[in-house]
Amino acid sequence: MEIFTKPKTEILFSEGIKQIPTSYIREILKVTADPDMISFAGGLPNPALFPVEEIKKVTAEILNKEAANILQYAKSEGYLPLREFIANRYKEKYNLEVSPEEILITNGSQQALDLIGKVFLNPGDQVLLEKPSYLGAIQSFSFYQPKFITVPLEADGPDIEHLNKILSIQKPKFFYSIPNFQNPSGITYSESKRKTVCEAVINNNLLLVEDDPYGEINFSGEMYPPLKTQIGNKGILLGTFSKIVAPGLRLGWVVAEKSIIKQLIRAKQASDLHSNNLSQRIIYQYLNQFNLENHLEKLRSNYKLQCNWMIAAMRKYFPKEINYMEPKGGMFIWVQLPKGFSVMDLAKETIKQKVVFVPGNTFYVDGSGENTFRLNFSNSDEKTIEKGIKRMGKILEQFMSER
Amino acid sequence: MEIFTKPKTEILFSEGIKQIPTSYIREILKVTADPDMISFAGGLPNPALFPVEEIKKVTAEILNKEAANILQYAKSEGYLPLREFIANRYKEKYNLEVSPEEILITNGSQQALDLIGKVFLNPGDQVLLEKPSYLGAIQSFSFYQPKFITVPLEADGPDIEHLNKILSIQKPKFFYSIPNFQNPSGITYSESKRKTVCEAVINNNLLLVEDDPYGEINFSGEMYPPLKTQIGNKGILLGTFSKIVAPGLRLGWVVAEKSIIKQLIRAKQASDLHSNNLSQRIIYQYLNQFNLENHLEKLRSNYKLQCNWMIAAMRKYFPKEINYMEPKGGMFIWVQLPKGFSVMDLAKETIKQKVVFVPGNTFYVDGSGENTFRLNFSNSDEKTIEKGIKRMGKILEQFMSER
Repeated sequence: MEIFTKPKTEILFSEGIKQIPTSYIREILKVTADPDMISFAGGLPNPALFPVEEIKKVTAEILNKEAANILQYAKSEGYLPLREFIANRYKEKYNLEVSPEEILITNGSQQALDLIGKVFLNPGDQVLLEKPSYLGAIQSFSFYQPKFITVPLEADGPDIEHLNKILSIQKPKFFYSIPNFQNPSGITYSESKRKTVCEAVINNNLLLVEDDPYGEINFSGEMYPPLKTQIGNKGILLGTFSKIVAPGLRLGWVVAEKSIIKQLIRAKQASDLHSNNLSQRIIYQYLNQFNLENHLEKLRSNYKLQCNWMIAAMRKYFPKEINYMEPKGGMFIWVQLPKGFSVMDLAKETIKQKVVFVPGNTFYVDGSGENTFRLNFSNSDEKTIEKGIKRMGKILEQFMSER
Repeated sequence: MEIFTKPKTEILFSEGIKQIPTSYIREILKVTADPDMISFAGGLPNPALFPVEEIKKVTAEILNKEAANILQYAKSEGYLPLREFIANRYKEKYNLEVSPEEILITNGSQQALDLIGKVFLNPGDQVLLEKPSYLGAIQSFSFYQPKFITVPLEADGPDIEHLNKILSIQKPKFFYSIPNFQNPSGITYSESKRKTVCEAVINNNLLLVEDDPYGEINFSGEMYPPLKTQIGNKGILLGTFSKIVAPGLRLGWVVAEKSIIKQLIRAKQASDLHSNNLSQRIIYQYLNQFNLENHLEKLRSNYKLQCNWMIAAMRKYFPKEINYMEPKGGMFIWVQLPKGFSVMDLAKETIKQKVVFVPGNTFYVDGSGENTFRLNFSNSDEKTIEKGIKRMGKILEQFMSER
């Protein structure tokens, strides 16, 4: 009997798995293990802002009170008080009426994206994306082998003429949209574009998958009601505690009409039975006992500060030919180099100088975006931002002079 | 603008989602919300045996020590010390050499099943199952639209003649097997059948997906080394902390050669980025600080006792024509009614009398098994077992007399 040998024939993996683009971001995270590396790459929240003491307190309390319950199997749809909290908050904050039965708790919104792919997509189905779009969504959906079509983003949201043209000739299964402080571009839809997009959704009987991880991290404190308030059952709305509480607890949620939630629950059951029970109870008790608005205020003012540090350093050190937009919230600054630049060449050079960012082409399904990149400011302090941007500035100056 | 109306056309869900059989077990869990209902249905571990004090202690410690780290994003492959612990344990206990790089941490073994489907299955691919097989696996795999083929289980493992016949004419992508205290049948492969199955795997260049949630819950304390010890890279081995520590933490793992783990990690990234970081740290510290063997001893003797209570009650109250096998471990007793019985009729009647179990046909992909059912003993005390089995016995007597 032959054992411990290589397989005689190569292992045949699925067509779907071959379609998932490798995450350059997660590859970069390996480089960032180097403690000397300055990382503007990942989308890590600032760990100094995690509500550590509050989480310690509620964790001890709930384990003292009902550990056996917490450690047992639980419902696929998620912990009811947590779903009720989310529903109430939408009602109070945005006057959006949703019932707890229209909410499914997921392992971060990444799982919501995967479950949406699972529930809706057959190979060859069309998915409409913003251009550029969030890499994690591209990865999740890619497994299901859709045909991606894209609508370019302008400074105030999607190019509406382009959107209408697409919808006049194509019938995408859904439009995946990040209306607030978009990842990677930082763009926020204007009031008027929100309205126009919602009209297009209704008129074309389209589903809108509205991903809103950053809506509450708006530097002005201004409110950005979900598009779902305008489109009702046409909206599938994704939220996450990763950006507003802590990502290590892996909790997000999806809001959709009951017939869709029913299918998402089937997919959830087959995927991992239910979300982490301890984390759900911790988050719920945290929300129940503490004032989330106060915490959000703290996040907003801190991230605004960090963003301002980065913008100030970019003004100081980046060549004038380089374009970027000040975001009104979120975690990212999107940079556009003059046409003809290779961002991959730039990345190689900055990594040598111990600064890392995400090349923009990873956010384009058509391989374009080679003159763009994304900077994250939420995970660096003032000194590190200054130092990293200064180093990048030098390299950029050199690149510009060599043109 | 029309809003909040029903979609004009029906929502088109994916082919895959339509293929997932509804979990009768999870439907039953709803019935069991009735506090008067005696449930022998779910596969819930005994919550009185959760290491509650130990988990409280280590949770407080790790949150005091490194909360910010624990609450941050983490690696897709899982927490390294936990993977090292698992690798060392396989080495020490079974002399199975695996490296931490050959281990991926998942949200319970349910997610491992889903990721395996994701990585390997194209529609129409063949998957070989035991007959009967675990419903959760059938659900996970069904999404990927394989063609199931089955090998009947005998008292000591698969029907080898049947297995060889299948493998002489078919080429399944993998054989999904639960060699120890199988769910639902309670069957354990004999030493000789283990050897024969491993030979068949090697000779046919087959992959074996070996699901081992119950191997450590063997009433005799006897060791059941994974089949992977005999087949090396041909083996994909699944383990879980749900049955030996606590299911609410949703942690399991998969062991496979690196080229397979690499694909599973891609699938994991696209599915939910990484497993719950807090739970991984809790479990690791629990394993690190406490003696798992002592805990397993406690589980084994308790589950053995619970099993004995149920067997004793069945001897006392069940009609003699009804067959069942005493399991040597695990959580279930498998019951065979005389041919021609309808277990669904039985279930309706027992639910009226407030006793619930899982009808066996849910474990058969061909719709057979209508004269079988599964009883769980791990989540009931002696009095409840006596009461529930007595009620079932009465109904069974009546069914037998009406034949």
